[in-house]
Amino acid sequence: MSVAVLCGGVGAARLLAGMVRTVPPADVTAVVNVADDMEMHGLAISPDLDTVVYTVAGAIDPERGWGLRDESWQAMATLERYGGETWFGLGDRDLGTHLYRTRRRAQGAPLSAVAGEIARGWGLELTVLPATDDPVRTVLTLADTGDEVAFQDYFVRRRHAVAVAAVRFDGADSARPAPGVREAIAAADTVVVAPSNPIVSIGPLLAVDGLREAVQARRDDVVAISPLVGGRALKGPADRLMRELGHDDSVVAIARLYAPVAGTLVIDQQDAEHAEAVRAEGLRCLVTDTIMRDPEAAAALCAVALG
Amino acid sequence: MSVAVLCGGVGAARLLAGMVRTVPPADVTAVVNVADDMEMHGLAISPDLDTVVYTVAGAIDPERGWGLRDESWQAMATLERYGGETWFGLGDRDLGTHLYRTRRRAQGAPLSAVAGEIARGWGLELTVLPATDDPVRTVLTLADTGDEVAFQDYFVRRRHAVAVAAVRFDGADSARPAPGVREAIAAADTVVVAPSNPIVSIGPLLAVDGLREAVQARRDDVVAISPLVGGRALKGPADRLMRELGHDDSVVAIARLYAPVAGTLVIDQQDAEHAEAVRAEGLRCLVTDTIMRDPEAAAALCAVALG
Repeated sequence: MSVAVLCGGVGAARLLAGMVRTVPPADVTAVVNVADDMEMHGLAISPDLDTVVYTVAGAIDPERGWGLRDESWQAMATLERYGGETWFGLGDRDLGTHLYRTRRRAQGAPLSAVAGEIARGWGLELTVLPATDDPVRTVLTLADTGDEVAFQDYFVRRRHAVAVAAVRFDGADSARPAPGVREAIAAADTVVVAPSNPIVSIGPLLAVDGLREAVQARRDDVVAISPLVGGRALKGPADRLMRELGHDDSVVAIARLYAPVAGTLVIDQQDAEHAEAVRAEGLRCLVTDTIMRDPEAAAALCAVALG
Repeated sequence: MSVAVLCGGVGAARLLAGMVRTVPPADVTAVVNVADDMEMHGLAISPDLDTVVYTVAGAIDPERGWGLRDESWQAMATLERYGGETWFGLGDRDLGTHLYRTRRRAQGAPLSAVAGEIARGWGLELTVLPATDDPVRTVLTLADTGDEVAFQDYFVRRRHAVAVAAVRFDGADSARPAPGVREAIAAADTVVVAPSNPIVSIGPLLAVDGLREAVQARRDDVVAISPLVGGRALKGPADRLMRELGHDDSVVAIARLYAPVAGTLVIDQQDAEHAEAVRAEGLRCLVTDTIMRDPEAAAALCAVALG
């Protein structure tokens, strides 16, 4: 049983930690959003790729949900001494990953090659691929000022506490799927859409020409997992973004968003009342406990999703 | 009494720690070699500037002589996990300095502005200036292979354990002194040439057009301090480089090198026998204890140099 998982950050990473307990890790390919990537202090930073790798490796900080456990913050303390920008926290251990990626990219290695090297550095057996090796960047238009800001500016610096009027994915038009992405999606027994933010995590991934088509071609075997439980995102601004961009914040809206690419939607038992409405959107609907308290709960969710 | 000090790394930094005990720190300008600078992992690294600042701030690691005390190495440990290049050790605390410098440079700030910001970050009152804001890079030709290597490749990666056939300073021809450098040299009561490597630390500094002339114009007030004691460098490859490039390794060779720019040479008491030979090269010669065991010894040396 081989699986391809379309991934954002934290939610997807937790699902993957369950997936590698459900199917042999070597049969799992994570296709990860890179539209949140940024350059900061000269370093190439890929937050979702790192969250996926650190989480599956059991090295993620369990409190924060991002970055490494047993982290220290000496570099940031020095940066603070100079009045430098520290809103995007880079832990000392974590910095080694960014140093490595930055140097390899400067040497001409594509992001996909580096992602594989980093995953192997943590002893992972699953395949970790960026959605694309080309630069795609999420740009959000703020409702109050009309300013356009990069994703991490919205998400971290402003703690996603501002209303968004529009979202676009710079570079998606000319981006192509990274090597291996289309193949993994075509070969998978099941393609899983992780319970990530459908707008800013899965959105930019499906905006890549050739990637969306590859998923659509497998629609009948595509199982999406709702990131909303009882109309709320467990983490992050998915519910608010849905509302701000004119969707409603129920699993039915998720079904509507994913209907073109997914044949099945998994919803939480708290949303069981919406199962019929989901089916009316043309998707099969599975109802289960979708809250991933730990890797075992995530594995149980994966077992349901894989049927 | 205002002083301008031409500086390399460790030796100059120790002298400066004494200088700020001898004259008011605000009256001291350090003009620092930047031909050892490098970019690594995407970061802008200025080893001599940092050694000067960290040392005068009392924050230098006293064992290593470079980098910060109480340092941790988490980022390097992660980098090692990926098989990344770790021969140039970047401590976690130290990394904050490189992150800051890299971001400010990317914002368009000249190196001299950033150097001032970093010095202020450590509460320093002396003025710290790079010799130039333009890129100058020391390139060494290895004797055995004829390969050309960058300074840190020679100095750190190969631990300066290879013979050098030639040295040049890429970019020196078109470089100009950083803002404030000529003014500080012109206004100083005394210009001190620190006991740094005359070939690869003071050499690239004097290779900058306009800087050499500014020093020459003050020749009578320029006091150089010999980096050789008893024919040997206390640290680093100055003696070997001198021999390999056809100079002898005595203070007399130092006198010959500096005669065009310095009116006085301070030599160690162990080299007292060479005082007459130094004078024969056309320099005044002061004999004292030049070994800077601690900042107090460095201050005593400064008092002699300043007359």
